[in-house]
Amino acid sequence: MTAAKSRRRPGRPSNESGRKADKREKILDVAELAFSEKGYAPTSLRAIGAKASVNPALITYYFGSKEKLFETVFKRRGTQIVQRWDELLDELEARPGRPPTVEEIMRAYLLAEFELKQSGEGGRRFVRLQARVHDETDAMHFRLRREVYDITTRRYLAALERALPDIDPAEIYWRMMFVIGAFLYMMSGVDRLDDLSRGRYKSDDINELVERLTTFVVAGMSTPSTSGLKRSD
Amino acid sequence: MTAAKSRRRPGRPSNESGRKADKREKILDVAELAFSEKGYAPTSLRAIGAKASVNPALITYYFGSKEKLFETVFKRRGTQIVQRWDELLDELEARPGRPPTVEEIMRAYLLAEFELKQSGEGGRRFVRLQARVHDETDAMHFRLRREVYDITTRRYLAALERALPDIDPAEIYWRMMFVIGAFLYMMSGVDRLDDLSRGRYKSDDINELVERLTTFVVAGMSTPSTSGLKRSD
Repeated sequence: MTAAKSRRRPGRPSNESGRKADKREKILDVAELAFSEKGYAPTSLRAIGAKASVNPALITYYFGSKEKLFETVFKRRGTQIVQRWDELLDELEARPGRPPTVEEIMRAYLLAEFELKQSGEGGRRFVRLQARVHDETDAMHFRLRREVYDITTRRYLAALERALPDIDPAEIYWRMMFVIGAFLYMMSGVDRLDDLSRGRYKSDDINELVERLTTFVVAGMSTPSTSGLKRSD
Repeated sequence: MTAAKSRRRPGRPSNESGRKADKREKILDVAELAFSEKGYAPTSLRAIGAKASVNPALITYYFGSKEKLFETVFKRRGTQIVQRWDELLDELEARPGRPPTVEEIMRAYLLAEFELKQSGEGGRRFVRLQARVHDETDAMHFRLRREVYDITTRRYLAALERALPDIDPAEIYWRMMFVIGAFLYMMSGVDRLDDLSRGRYKSDDINELVERLTTFVVAGMSTPSTSGLKRSD
């Protein structure tokens, strides 16, 4: 695609491989919007084709199937988040002599997601799609979550275990689920805060959200293990 | 319905108004399952009719429209949760001399939901439906959440404000959103814990879940307000 782009000249139409790449990206954008609005099951290739002004057969030609199209859409930005997570944790762990604190680890984890939400229309679409993906219980969605997120999420869990040697590792895993639930809900675009507080408070300021959520999850992560449960290690 | 039931005799078919009530409940059960599995938009009255072995026209006759059917399904068990929430908070607030603690308030809030999940197949269906309802951003879902949950959720917020006089009320509202997100995720039936920990930990023990989640949210709720943000009151 880079080669194709570099051959384009101003004022002239792009060549054929450039047009193909553009069309492919357009289909992915349209599909991302459709899947994020309605979820996987009710979205048809025919509807995506109509919105992208292409024949559904072309979508199948490019991507193979609806499932493959969805996978391509999800991984396109999913891998961006994961790269950013890795980068942020790499930075923290590269610091000599002072291992990352719980607050630093949690802030990095939340930041990568909220940065994507702030990155423009496509980021917002993906964030909504991701909230849907996390809510599905079929085999395809499980596989995609596993393939995209697991290795990096386990890196964060390992960093938390090192930062919290007195907390039962089982409890750290459980707490990570609570963190994921809290941030997915805040990213889903459902502004219950506005609703419940009758407009007194709003959750549209991303910095405020990251700060308040970090305070909450750091306290939850760091509090002593639940008593009365068997320690797992 | 009670009068109709009392007129039934063993070994004899139920009378007509009893059969109607049974059929109505059956449609609600089938609709609850269908909406919880696929969500509102992709579920048709025709599909519900087929599964309940009734003509879709009969569903319209009983309930008016797909939206009204959904509302009836959602409110049937939604009002149960809200009643249980009110009961539990009433008990805590009736105790003389010792106002409810953050831990008591949070445990009551989580317990009502998890009790419903444990109450059988219908409870489980509803809990899944509710997770879907919380993830939708259209006007109907906003209205239903507002009508069913808001008054009681504000009672819990007011109790938390009294138990946490040093925390900025805005922060208590925000934190309630994080609590709702965390428990909805744990109730959605997506067992990421099993997946991420490669089977080492499982989230299928409701008591363990309530204990660990209570520890987490009590710590998050009670920690000092986020510094560097303007206090709202």
